Amino acid sequence: MPNGMSAEALPRTLAADVPSYVEKSGEAVRISGWIHRRRRLSALTFVVIRDRTGLAQVVVRDPATLEQIETLGEETTVDVVGTVSANPKAPGGVEIVDPVFSALSDPAETPPIELWRPKLTAGLPAMLDHAQVTLRHPLQQAKWQIAAASLRGFRATLDAQGFTEVHSPKLVESATESGANVFAVDYFGRPAYLAQSPQFYKQVLVGIFERVYEVGPVFRAEPHDTVRHLAEYVSLDVEFGFIQDHFEVIGVLRDVVAGMVTAIRSDAPAAVELLGADIPDVPEEIPILHFREALEIAGAPADEPDLAPAHERAIGEWGQREHGSDFVVVHGYPTAHRAFYSHPDPDDPHWSRAFDLIFRGVELVSGAQRLHRYADYVRVLGERGLPVEPFAGYIDAFRYGVPPHGGFAIGLERWTGRLVEADNIREVTLFPRDLHRLAP
Amino acid sequence: MPNGMSAEALPRTLAADVPSYVEKSGEAVRISGWIHRRRRLSALTFVVIRDRTGLAQVVVRDPATLEQIETLGEETTVDVVGTVSANPKAPGGVEIVDPVFSALSDPAETPPIELWRPKLTAGLPAMLDHAQVTLRHPLQQAKWQIAAASLRGFRATLDAQGFTEVHSPKLVESATESGANVFAVDYFGRPAYLAQSPQFYKQVLVGIFERVYEVGPVFRAEPHDTVRHLAEYVSLDVEFGFIQDHFEVIGVLRDVVAGMVTAIRSDAPAAVELLGADIPDVPEEIPILHFREALEIAGAPADEPDLAPAHERAIGEWGQREHGSDFVVVHGYPTAHRAFYSHPDPDDPHWSRAFDLIFRGVELVSGAQRLHRYADYVRVLGERGLPVEPFAGYIDAFRYGVPPHGGFAIGLERWTGRLVEADNIREVTLFPRDLHRLAP
Repeated sequence: MPNGMSAEALPRTLAADVPSYVEKSGEAVRISGWIHRRRRLSALTFVVIRDRTGLAQVVVRDPATLEQIETLGEETTVDVVGTVSANPKAPGGVEIVDPVFSALSDPAETPPIELWRPKLTAGLPAMLDHAQVTLRHPLQQAKWQIAAASLRGFRATLDAQGFTEVHSPKLVESATESGANVFAVDYFGRPAYLAQSPQFYKQVLVGIFERVYEVGPVFRAEPHDTVRHLAEYVSLDVEFGFIQDHFEVIGVLRDVVAGMVTAIRSDAPAAVELLGADIPDVPEEIPILHFREALEIAGAPADEPDLAPAHERAIGEWGQREHGSDFVVVHGYPTAHRAFYSHPDPDDPHWSRAFDLIFRGVELVSGAQRLHRYADYVRVLGERGLPVEPFAGYIDAFRYGVPPHGGFAIGLERWTGRLVEADNIREVTLFPRDLHRLAP
Repeated sequence: MPNGMSAEALPRTLAADVPSYVEKSGEAVRISGWIHRRRRLSALTFVVIRDRTGLAQVVVRDPATLEQIETLGEETTVDVVGTVSANPKAPGGVEIVDPVFSALSDPAETPPIELWRPKLTAGLPAMLDHAQVTLRHPLQQAKWQIAAASLRGFRATLDAQGFTEVHSPKLVESATESGANVFAVDYFGRPAYLAQSPQFYKQVLVGIFERVYEVGPVFRAEPHDTVRHLAEYVSLDVEFGFIQDHFEVIGVLRDVVAGMVTAIRSDAPAAVELLGADIPDVPEEIPILHFREALEIAGAPADEPDLAPAHERAIGEWGQREHGSDFVVVHGYPTAHRAFYSHPDPDDPHWSRAFDLIFRGVELVSGAQRLHRYADYVRVLGERGLPVEPFAGYIDAFRYGVPPHGGFAIGLERWTGRLVEADNIREVTLFPRDLHRLAP
């Protein structure tokens, strides 16, 4: 052993920390991870070890060790004890020489996906079929690291603002939000459904905790096979009360997005660099347009009921041109075209207090001030021709005092997909579920 | 207006901060919340306002205001601007006099649960039927505040130890963990199931991120109507690789439990006090017993396959007596009586590397080192007479190098229930689901 230390006593060094040994040539070091790649030259073999933090290079010259590593296929997990050697040509300027390998798992079979390539070359269906292996690729891991950092930033921002994390049930009695796209469950012999969103629960919970957030799965029986649709995704839901209007909701959304971006920069800088992701700056005040102004800027007729993709692109360009901002909020969408629980503008109920956050010319997040009076719910359900009965358990809460409130929901996969410019939302989902896919 | 400030300009003060005004008699203050109780005396009425932080007392003497609050039933949400008045007899030593009330919602109907009582007097079925209202009671809110603080402590501990948060799908192709108690879903015309745990996904994810945790719903079609069973609960799952043995897993479990306790103490002290909850100390090293020793201490025959409740109580007493600890870990349960993926003790495979954490004489958490070799899975499934096919997508990952690993799962509701000594797990669940209950 180098320096007389026993291999057992030596603590593990993570791959990302190996370059910090650049001044310590000759010291013993221990790393653990997966054999990412073996590159055989005439007199030596480079073995690249991958762990959760990155890659480290090991140089094998000893004939017995060369023979041993011939039996350890790529993806075998190993423990390696060796000697630090500074080498400007090695990744990070340090490599490990004179290694002793101990296999931690049986020799791995040849993986169905070539993980050692700098970029994955398999088609998306093959990548998804073998997600257990595909996700090991540094670029795939990096996408999820951005998602995980975003979750931390989301919660940290809201925890600091007096919000309470909640968990609402996913098994529900009625298919409410949009009748068609709901999964039915056999619940002890009677029908139940998978919640399409925690919308009603989070509003009811405002009546309890004032300010709540939930991170959890939502289920949509989407019969569409597109690059944007998932049957199950992670929804980041926020709702809070005692507001004056929806501009307070937009303010919290701004803080949440800024907090997510800050967490990505601080917790996942290596992932950002590896992916070359263009993480946006979030202005102190996101430019806000009323829906009418937005139509005007987009050159659309004043009676359009919604913004078309081309309109959103034009608004994105306006935000860049006029404010240097990747983000624009459009509020005041026509009430009739938003969810029934959206609060109308008291001065002109044709317009709502609903808004969208547009990021680089595409809608990213929707939110609104909601109705908070029982009588308004009964009236609106009637106007829209919806039966009251399936909503009874939900709107009942509004008989007993719920303050003016609002909120929004961010789809985690959509958020990550936009940041890393994924062509297909399945690329940023750990194990996607869709019309055709239920495994792995 | 007192002090000449306009009501609009005055920022909101939370109920918990009102006592800090004790030296500021005569200053204007604004609070918002629910009318928790109106107590009418001959010359004045006390109005108690409840917000997310607690209660504040308002004194009404003005005849017009007395008339106004007669129309505002308990649970109406209001904004109150008044004058601070120190009064040693008031809760917190401060009350608000000369108030101006503005209703924020329509006057509330009489709630089905009497929330103003210091303790709820309704039976559990009524409380659950009206959970939207019941949960507003300070004692009910406090239980969930302990749960929410626990979640923060759980994540903070693992984030600091290099874990990655993951979200695995809840819609799965096969009913694996225990065939019977699974909910079936109509998935675009073919059968799917709700995941009974993220067990297999978190193990596969160790092959990707090394160290992972997940907080999310799990689903059990439990046909038992008991005080302990829920059909849906929140599971806190942890799994990590590159371990020597299960003692490392026990070490992380210790840190996680200590972190949850620390977060409860720092983030939810008012809830702890209100509930009189006896929050435990977590020793640096939790006393550990092998299953054989545990049987001996419990005075049980050496061939018992598991610990009965009376045995766990005896072990809890031993932990108190010998180590002054509320916690004891028992490890080495007979392999045949643990989940098939439990790793046997290499020195004597009759015993496993599985463990339970016993808290005050009752099992709280289960965990283990898991099998990590593909061949072991094939062998064990064969020995247990289980078909390989439903597990194929899961065990396939072990063909491609998964390091030695282990983990554990904490049921959030069970954890909170034990801390607050709830008689029924439904008391610490926001909207419980069971054999008979699917709403609200």
